[in-house]
Amino acid sequence: MTETFQLLQEAFAEICDLQSASAVLQWDQETYMPPGGCNARAEAVAAVEKTAHARLVSDDLARLLDQAERWAQAQGPDSFAFAFTRAARREQERARKLAPQLVTELAKATALASDAWRVARHNSDFPAFAPHLERVMALSRRKAEALAVGKRPYDSLLDIYEPDARTTDLEDVFRALRRGLVPLVREIMARRDAVSDAVLHVPCDENLQVKFCRTVTKHLGYDFERGRQDLSTHPFTTSFSVNDVRITTRTLKDYWPAGLYGSIHECGHALYAQGIAPEFDRTPLNGGASLGVDESQSRLWENLVARGRPFCTWILRVLRERFPDQFSRCQAEELYRAVNKAGPSLIRVEADEVTYNLHVLLRFELEAELVEGRLRVSEAPEAWNSKMTEYLGVRPPDDANGILQDIHWSAGLIGYFPTYALGNIMSAQFFAQARHDLPGLDGTIRNGDFAVLRGWLKDNIHRHGRSYTAAELLKKVTGRALDAEPFLDYLRAKYSELYGFKAAAPVAVRLAR
Amino acid sequence: MTETFQLLQEAFAEICDLQSASAVLQWDQETYMPPGGCNARAEAVAAVEKTAHARLVSDDLARLLDQAERWAQAQGPDSFAFAFTRAARREQERARKLAPQLVTELAKATALASDAWRVARHNSDFPAFAPHLERVMALSRRKAEALAVGKRPYDSLLDIYEPDARTTDLEDVFRALRRGLVPLVREIMARRDAVSDAVLHVPCDENLQVKFCRTVTKHLGYDFERGRQDLSTHPFTTSFSVNDVRITTRTLKDYWPAGLYGSIHECGHALYAQGIAPEFDRTPLNGGASLGVDESQSRLWENLVARGRPFCTWILRVLRERFPDQFSRCQAEELYRAVNKAGPSLIRVEADEVTYNLHVLLRFELEAELVEGRLRVSEAPEAWNSKMTEYLGVRPPDDANGILQDIHWSAGLIGYFPTYALGNIMSAQFFAQARHDLPGLDGTIRNGDFAVLRGWLKDNIHRHGRSYTAAELLKKVTGRALDAEPFLDYLRAKYSELYGFKAAAPVAVRLAR
Repeated sequence: MTETFQLLQEAFAEICDLQSASAVLQWDQETYMPPGGCNARAEAVAAVEKTAHARLVSDDLARLLDQAERWAQAQGPDSFAFAFTRAARREQERARKLAPQLVTELAKATALASDAWRVARHNSDFPAFAPHLERVMALSRRKAEALAVGKRPYDSLLDIYEPDARTTDLEDVFRALRRGLVPLVREIMARRDAVSDAVLHVPCDENLQVKFCRTVTKHLGYDFERGRQDLSTHPFTTSFSVNDVRITTRTLKDYWPAGLYGSIHECGHALYAQGIAPEFDRTPLNGGASLGVDESQSRLWENLVARGRPFCTWILRVLRERFPDQFSRCQAEELYRAVNKAGPSLIRVEADEVTYNLHVLLRFELEAELVEGRLRVSEAPEAWNSKMTEYLGVRPPDDANGILQDIHWSAGLIGYFPTYALGNIMSAQFFAQARHDLPGLDGTIRNGDFAVLRGWLKDNIHRHGRSYTAAELLKKVTGRALDAEPFLDYLRAKYSELYGFKAAAPVAVRLAR
Repeated sequence: MTETFQLLQEAFAEICDLQSASAVLQWDQETYMPPGGCNARAEAVAAVEKTAHARLVSDDLARLLDQAERWAQAQGPDSFAFAFTRAARREQERARKLAPQLVTELAKATALASDAWRVARHNSDFPAFAPHLERVMALSRRKAEALAVGKRPYDSLLDIYEPDARTTDLEDVFRALRRGLVPLVREIMARRDAVSDAVLHVPCDENLQVKFCRTVTKHLGYDFERGRQDLSTHPFTTSFSVNDVRITTRTLKDYWPAGLYGSIHECGHALYAQGIAPEFDRTPLNGGASLGVDESQSRLWENLVARGRPFCTWILRVLRERFPDQFSRCQAEELYRAVNKAGPSLIRVEADEVTYNLHVLLRFELEAELVEGRLRVSEAPEAWNSKMTEYLGVRPPDDANGILQDIHWSAGLIGYFPTYALGNIMSAQFFAQARHDLPGLDGTIRNGDFAVLRGWLKDNIHRHGRSYTAAELLKKVTGRALDAEPFLDYLRAKYSELYGFKAAAPVAVRLAR
């Protein structure tokens, strides 16, 4: 039987190789490709992906998987063979369930919708985008039917990005989150001017910023022997192998945190990808447990670490070295307050860590209603605007700053949004556990020593790759299920102190738990 | 029938897409890939190339090609369909003739040989490399038998790189070339010190050199909207599409011509690749007619243009702007003489344009003898050294500076060397024709206006891509067959004047013809 499993591994290794090739092509497209290369690149990516897909849905592979599966399961849930075949089965099953015709229809519809979205956003013209959104939602319903996961249509879509998560469970957790966040935002809004972020708006040379960002990611432990950091319009992380994980950054001359915090965010993803067990390379286990867990790693570093007081003390030393004119008179406490200024805003990607999840919750609620037929597309802008008013106390002046702001729906990424909020929730659960396990953690961070935290993350999370689902991993690491309270506790403690109000919940008690 | 041809085109388009994907992976490997990415990259390239190869040798493609071929031939030799199916047939036939087992054996043998070569060169230990060379030659003989082109074993190997060229014809042309070159080298050697190249050995900041090189290639007409120029250890040109053609450069702080002339050389290749008719993209016609024709374009720009007086006048102006400290007192004539200093040397890649071809001829003669069984591997070092003495008047002190200097044989590239000499010969034939057709050419070059020459090259050579063989193209453009005399005439006229000797042949008469 090990021979069959060997053959299965070889077949999957080649599929991974092709997926890796496609990722390289896309990385180049976003970083170095000259404008003229665009059309040829689209064809090359399509040719490689079509080949990978054909292998994945082939009857040969199905036979191998059928033959190996029972034997692998007998090896026990912590065995490589068990985890391998489970992940392989998931990937293969999803690919086989989707008829090529539906995939083609979706590709065409989302290509058209993305073009239409760009124009509609520019003109703030939702009606021009509406028929495309209708079509994407209709096709997403067909996709959900074909995938047939869970009890609700949205379950199937969610499962693509967050394996084994279910809509109803998320609704419960998100309800608790919303109930904690909305009053917190009101408290902050009432004291908006208590925190100044002036020090974030000082001009810094962009070439120096790029070097500074590389210094920081290197310090956090990103391995440049197995990765590189380039510039791109939209920062991203991509993995071609455990030993070739790349991140990109963008810088803004007049707003240096864009470069720094963007770099730290991507570095969080990259540490995960570089920390996966080397023996998972070229297997379906090379990847994050879920998009939520992946996001928990980027947000843990970006927010829980890099927006904390110990980190601000350290980074100010580096800032002063690199940008003496701008930071020689800045104090750590001033920096700490500035990078934590919060308050409602219209645009998700610009939101702070308190309000961010309310943007996400709103999108999750709307897309679930749209795909499950409880909301009509024509009613969606008004639903968006009234939820914005209810959750954040602000109402978009137009759809460009409202329902048209994100690319996701036009790209057919329905079920993706909730993973952002899941990432934030899990980041707090993981970090609370790390704090518990590592009593001197703050001191190490203050000294710019990130090896302790990184080692903990690698041992507990990174190395497992896709061996466990998010729920299994959370349970294994923290002993708990998904729970919004640690995240709410963290926010309440931090922001009540920053803005000077009495936290609504017994913070101390909760933090101790 | 047009429908069958349409299907054939689509099938080849996907093969080209996969080949393009592989080229991107290799470009990244040479430019930006971190060291850790090495193993995964080898697997990804192999997976993509294996897929492209499988498509190329498939029975489905063979059927389409069989069905379309007669119809295409009826369209006439200047039709797209004719050229397409001829190039497609050539590519497909070569792939089908090579049994997978032989390809695998060759891949393994050359991988081992390349490793062994590196060590052997380092230790100047030919006996350690000899068994690997034996094996490569034995497999190359089998490869030649399988390909079964022409009458001699070497014909099959030559045909891979120089379609339709035959060994015996080359021997004739190369004999004439050698008979012209050897006395010319003796004349130069007798007056070695007549030319100084001191101005080439002035230190120049490498970042400025890179910018300078980009300015020059842009001026020559390399389109940065459809290409880019990066750094790599070994400069090369690669094409992912007519609209994405990339070049690389290396610079040496203390020898600026390495960067400049290397850039111009690659730019020559790139202008060819960017100048191919856009409708040849994603077809087997997107490429150079042969490696020889490709090399004729790089050498035409590098030597016939950029080592000429008009170019030296122009480039000195740019050098003075970019490096005033180094070049403010340099005169155009001094620069012209310096970049044309010639003389025998041991290493091919460092040779000047006079001696270079003798290095190549020696390799061609030896590899033909080795593969055709007229020379034993054990005798090869002595054969090398005595030919060096005979042709160039120098004898390598050891094999590291002799037979072990090139990577080609260890990589299985038998039949490749002669294309370098063919490129030089053809470059002179093409340039003589361009001079004839463009009376004011020197003046335009002196003014840094390269559009006239580039336009001529594009119209006459570049746009045709792989539609014609080298012989057909030469005939079409110059009305002549391959002929070493224009190249010899060019060298005799130039170097007799530079070194102050009487040219051996009636130069004026020959140039007029």
